[in-house]
Amino acid sequence: MPTTEETEVALSIDISRRGREIQGSPIRKLAAVAEARKRQGVTVYHLNIGQPDLPTPPAVLDAIHHFDHTTIAYAPSNGLAPAVTAWKKYFTHHGVSFAENEIIVTAGGSEAIIFALCAVCDTDDEVIVFEPFYTNYNGFATIANVRLRAVPLSISNGFHLPPEEEIERHITARTRAILFCNPSNPTGTIYTREELQRLVNLSRKHGLFLLSDEVYREFAYDAPAISIADFPEIRDRAIVLDSCSKRFNVCGARIGALASHNADVVSAALKFGMARLSVATVDQLAVAPLLSDPETYTRPIVEEFRRRRDVVIDGLRSIPGVTYYKPEGAFYIVVGLPVKDAEHFSRWLIEEFTLENETVLVAPAPGFYATPGKGTNEVRLAFMLNEAHLHRSLRILKAALEAYHAKFGS
Amino acid sequence: MPTTEETEVALSIDISRRGREIQGSPIRKLAAVAEARKRQGVTVYHLNIGQPDLPTPPAVLDAIHHFDHTTIAYAPSNGLAPAVTAWKKYFTHHGVSFAENEIIVTAGGSEAIIFALCAVCDTDDEVIVFEPFYTNYNGFATIANVRLRAVPLSISNGFHLPPEEEIERHITARTRAILFCNPSNPTGTIYTREELQRLVNLSRKHGLFLLSDEVYREFAYDAPAISIADFPEIRDRAIVLDSCSKRFNVCGARIGALASHNADVVSAALKFGMARLSVATVDQLAVAPLLSDPETYTRPIVEEFRRRRDVVIDGLRSIPGVTYYKPEGAFYIVVGLPVKDAEHFSRWLIEEFTLENETVLVAPAPGFYATPGKGTNEVRLAFMLNEAHLHRSLRILKAALEAYHAKFGS
Repeated sequence: MPTTEETEVALSIDISRRGREIQGSPIRKLAAVAEARKRQGVTVYHLNIGQPDLPTPPAVLDAIHHFDHTTIAYAPSNGLAPAVTAWKKYFTHHGVSFAENEIIVTAGGSEAIIFALCAVCDTDDEVIVFEPFYTNYNGFATIANVRLRAVPLSISNGFHLPPEEEIERHITARTRAILFCNPSNPTGTIYTREELQRLVNLSRKHGLFLLSDEVYREFAYDAPAISIADFPEIRDRAIVLDSCSKRFNVCGARIGALASHNADVVSAALKFGMARLSVATVDQLAVAPLLSDPETYTRPIVEEFRRRRDVVIDGLRSIPGVTYYKPEGAFYIVVGLPVKDAEHFSRWLIEEFTLENETVLVAPAPGFYATPGKGTNEVRLAFMLNEAHLHRSLRILKAALEAYHAKFGS
Repeated sequence: MPTTEETEVALSIDISRRGREIQGSPIRKLAAVAEARKRQGVTVYHLNIGQPDLPTPPAVLDAIHHFDHTTIAYAPSNGLAPAVTAWKKYFTHHGVSFAENEIIVTAGGSEAIIFALCAVCDTDDEVIVFEPFYTNYNGFATIANVRLRAVPLSISNGFHLPPEEEIERHITARTRAILFCNPSNPTGTIYTREELQRLVNLSRKHGLFLLSDEVYREFAYDAPAISIADFPEIRDRAIVLDSCSKRFNVCGARIGALASHNADVVSAALKFGMARLSVATVDQLAVAPLLSDPETYTRPIVEEFRRRRDVVIDGLRSIPGVTYYKPEGAFYIVVGLPVKDAEHFSRWLIEEFTLENETVLVAPAPGFYATPGKGTNEVRLAFMLNEAHLHRSLRILKAALEAYHAKFGS
């Protein structure tokens, strides 16, 4: 048996700085409170998370039910041939041409982003992001030991990009890349060709990679979203990061891809891929049919999300004092609330408020910002509920803001 | 259109140092040559890779075929409840007790190792490994920006651990952990309790985490392999890294786990897990039944591998000049060949040699060593073929060595 002193030594061992400092998920932060509320019999509408509520396409489930291998063997590290071919077809379908050896199948878009960061950055290198940004970029940067430099966007112009010079101010000798999400999570913004051209210009001027997270590609309600692969002049600097999760309602399949015309980037990503051996075999095969023929499935669901967006905008229009814009894509919106502290309001909303025994869970926006003090009055809403539930959710939000003001002033 | 000069600038962009320097897989290095050989009509026996040849258990395939969710949704970041419960049962079955909140389900053992390295190390921190070691530890260390310090083992004592003082010589102010594989890939060595006690003593003396890769746990032919969780005096310093892949013949399912009594480690691993959202849903559910009742399946396959090991040892006994030992576990052996350059021999064997139109693919051992010049006459053999094929493979190896000596001298 160890002595007491030795036991204390053993107990005092420290984990790493990055292990201590990595951000917890602001999206899942209040999830435990919501569960407790549900156990009290309260209906909770989840506007906090991008978990699709629509059924997975039958073609995917059929492929799973008819999986006919006798051994679930490792796939090749770059992906099973049918999956790689399917991704190539998918990109071609969207007007982007990648050869099969320019595509690496990844465990969701998440792994694609980690591989891209590791392929272009060493420790303490910097990557430009636009805040508010997809909060898990923080986690990926922590794993990869990369620093994110956040360029602020503003709700006042629907979170569109600032002028080239403004972005340039954040570029240092250590900047290696610009990482952006288009259409954007958490804002639903789609960058115009002219905005993307600013990034392309900066890439050429400063020798930066452009890491374009295009997982919401199809969710474009007014005009198509433009891929970074559509700019031939930075052919070797563009890295497309992609995922089947949202567009095919297969979040739990964890199938994404990294694609680039830069052979060094693909070679490095493949070696990172060799280290982790492979991506799940059944899931790669399951999504391949849809990747080969995406629009039959995605066209109707994009229409569904357009209607949902419109329900949310209608609902916001009826709430006094909120700041909002009309998202051009994805299924998120960042809303400015007439409160001082959106964290406090969000917690109070899920912990204490009900309207007809129902309440709403939202994601406070500060977790999507890197700069302390930014977005303090903002929340992100995900519209992953049917129109009736969204309509009720917005009514609850309106009533909650009235009750909150009556109780706390602002 | 860009000018020529601008195009050249774009083409000259450099990727990261780690992207350039990450080791390619020594196991898969000669795979393309083997494929070319097969196209010439030559039968190739794969002794290079740990891809199980046995069928996946029906319970796993049944669970896949009967997957009954309508939406393949994200799993919780720590794992689906049935999968976490199944891992707990699995560990209990093997005499190790972890609470459900001490277990994180991971994408194979690979992700468990990456999370563990990130949880205990910051950039340029050091981790002790024993060479030869599982080659992908290099890749994980590159991704995590951690330095491996290799303590040499020797084929002369079957790659058992050196004395405590010898290991201690490699510990520096930056050392944070010892990472080891028990039973070992690539050597098949199982460390005795007394050997593990040396690591435990060093952990206590120097404040080191012990990262124990136990994915071959059941493959123990003489005495059971001892888990690092079996040493209560370092309860908070032990991290068990595990995977279903080999023991259940589900390599392509990518289901592993990290387990620890250290709440800070588990909390950090969970946050890394939140960044990547979740592990594949179907696959987690598919392996859960086997984890809950492992031995019904593993007992007969372990007996099969014991017979395979014996066929390999018999075959080696008949080859003049080889150096070998009897592996206590796993399904690998590192063999010293009577040649100067095992890389050259291995390539010649797959490229040029046949016996009755058959040849053998082996993994040259230098890729499993960190120290240049080590293991130059060694190869790793994986015994993942049936007894008849292993018997033939060893005959081919013997004939090849004779032909090689006739041609090259040594």
